[in-house]
Parts: sequence; C-alpha cells; structure tokens
Amino acid sequence: MNAPLREPQQDRSRATRERLLASTVDLLATRGWAATTVAKVAEDAGVSRGAAQHHFPTREALFTAVIEQMYDNMTAEAGAALAELPTGPDSIAAVVAQAVAIYTGKPFKAALQVWSAAASDPALGEVIRPLELKLGRAAHKLVVAGLDPDGSRPQAHRLAQITLDLARGFGLADTLTDDSRRRAGVQAAWVEQLTVALG
Amino acid sequence: MNAPLREPQQDRSRATRERLLASTVDLLATRGWAATTVAKVAEDAGVSRGAAQHHFPTREALFTAVIEQMYDNMTAEAGAALAELPTGPDSIAAVVAQAVAIYTGKPFKAALQVWSAAASDPALGEVIRPLELKLGRAAHKLVVAGLDPDGSRPQAHRLAQITLDLARGFGLADTLTDDSRRRAGVQAAWVEQLTVALG
Repeated sequence: MNAPLREPQQDRSRATRERLLASTVDLLATRGWAATTVAKVAEDAGVSRGAAQHHFPTREALFTAVIEQMYDNMTAEAGAALAELPTGPDSIAAVVAQAVAIYTGKPFKAALQVWSAAASDPALGEVIRPLELKLGRAAHKLVVAGLDPDGSRPQAHRLAQITLDLARGFGLADTLTDDSRRRAGVQAAWVEQLTVALG
Repeated sequence: MNAPLREPQQDRSRATRERLLASTVDLLATRGWAATTVAKVAEDAGVSRGAAQHHFPTREALFTAVIEQMYDNMTAEAGAALAELPTGPDSIAAVVAQAVAIYTGKPFKAALQVWSAAASDPALGEVIRPLELKLGRAAHKLVVAGLDPDGSRPQAHRLAQITLDLARGFGLADTLTDDSRRRAGVQAAWVEQLTVALG
C-alpha cells in the first residue's frame, strides 16, 4: 500500500527535474554557455542546490539530459508537423515556416550554445552528433513531404536540403540580433523560388 | 639616429603580435572558446607569457583585436573576390563558391565561437555586430555583382541574400562534423536553381 504515498513524491521529483531542464534551456538560449551554471539553473528553477545536485550530480549530467530533451522535443515537433501537413495553395509557405520555426526557436538557440562548447569538449560532441543527425532526418522528411506530397517531384529532396541549410543559416543570424524582419523577406523570396521550381 | 635601432624592434613587436593573433584564431576555430586562454595562445605562438601580456593586457583586449582582424580579413576577402569577379558560363558557380568559402573558412569558425560567447558577454556582442554587418554588406555586394553583372536582374538581390543565409547555414553545419561532401551536393543544386532563376 505504498503506492499512494510514493506516487506524489515521484511526481514532485519529476516536476523538479523538468523545472531544472527548462531553466537550463532558458539560460542557455538567453545568457549562453558560460552563464549557465548549476547554481544559476537551480536558483532560476526555485530548487535548492542540494536538490539540483541530487538530480544532476555533475554539470555534464545536466547538459547531457538537456541536450537529449531539446533534440527529442525538436524532433517530435518535426514529427507532429508531418502528421498535420498543410495542404492547398499555401502548403509550401507553411512547411518552410515550420522548418524555419524549428531552427529559430529557443531550443535550437540553446543547442547552438552546446554545439559551440563542444569544440572545447569532445564528449559533448559525441552526445550531440547523433541527435542532430536524427533531427536533420526528421526535418528533411517533413519538408520533402510538404514540397512533394504525392512523390512526383524528385527535385524536392535537394530543395528540402537547401531549405534546411537556409533555415539553419536563419537560426544562426538570429542569435546575434533579432533578425525576424530581414528573415521574413528572404524566406518569402525562397518560397517564391520553391513554387516556381516545383511548378 | 635611433631609427635604425628602433625599426627592427618595431618589426619584431609587430611580428609577435601577429603570431599571437594567428594562434588565437587557430585555437578558437579548432579548440573553441573555453580552451583559448592567453596562456595557451602564448604557448602556441612561442611567445613568453610576459610578452603576450605586454601586447594584450587582458583576455578582452586579445579577443577584441582578433575579432577586428578576422572580420577585416573576411571583408577584404569579399572585396578581393569582387575585384576579380569571374565571368563566363561558370560565373554563378564561382561566385557561390566564393561566398561559401568565406563562411566555411577558419576565420568564420573562430568568429562563431566568439559569437556564441557573446551571449554571456554583451560587450563582445557590441564588438562583433557592426563588423558582422560590414562583412554581410561586402559579401552581398560580391554575390549581387556575380549574379547580376550588368544590373539587369533585380531578383539578384534577394537571390544573393538566400545565397548568403545558405552559406552561413553551411558554415554552421561544418562546425560539428566535416560537412564538405554533403555540402557539395546541396551547393550544386543551389547553383542550378540560381541558373534557372536568372534565366
């Protein structure tokens, strides 16, 4: 008969863990790698230092968990978008917007910080590379499906790759300044290109 | 009659400074921000710690100098390419290759590290932003001139912007793994798109 007592405790523990992970993503995206210390994460999450260390004994453990969660979320976002694929005359614009949203969102900004830090920390690179590959595949599948719903346009595969590299370029440009206005114009021009190319 | 004595000393001093800056770019591009300490830079440059501190009293002074030099070099590279603009049937492929070379080269990899670090250090952002803007303008001027040598294709401006965002996306993808093989295919597909779009 321990279950009714244990369960709320497990829920609380899970909620604490989730708050710590969410604070980490926020801090990484807005303040960067150096500013994202376990102490600051715990403070922002409203969690004691001791409780934070119970969940994540080392900074590495915290970052490994957060990288996995961020990439799982972005990959799931691509999967969810694929399940509700836009149709009709604006479908190209819609799928490009979905791809751009993935690479200009907060999780990707946070991921970029870890990505940069991986240059000084090869173990981080080992964690990110397979997850980045998996995200890239899910995003590619989404964009191909959006550009070529009935499988009649073989050029859609290359155009999807260009779309994703472009989206990553947008994501990068957005880290230094708010690039949304400039990006909107370039994105619209790319949608126009795609529309012509897919005829 | 001090000049003959002073000059070689100034030359040596300038050479030491250049070696320190070159080591910093190498370290940033290959080992990342955290690993690029003044001590390691001095060691790699074969310069004493004291001499390094004479040139760059603080880590900030070193990074400010290196950022300015990197961006000046990349902007000069865009300017030099503009002066020797390719002509003929392969001119589109050539100018795209020049743009991609700027954003996948060592200085941009080093700049990306500073760029990420700027999230935790707003003063760094203040140094980079105007230089990034200046580089962006020089690169845009280069690509527009390559895509539209006689000023008859107004769409070249937007296509140049797409080219540069794409090139930055390539630059980013190349930091995590050697992306040159995959990139070659996507780049060729983009050149094909441009060729059709520019009729």
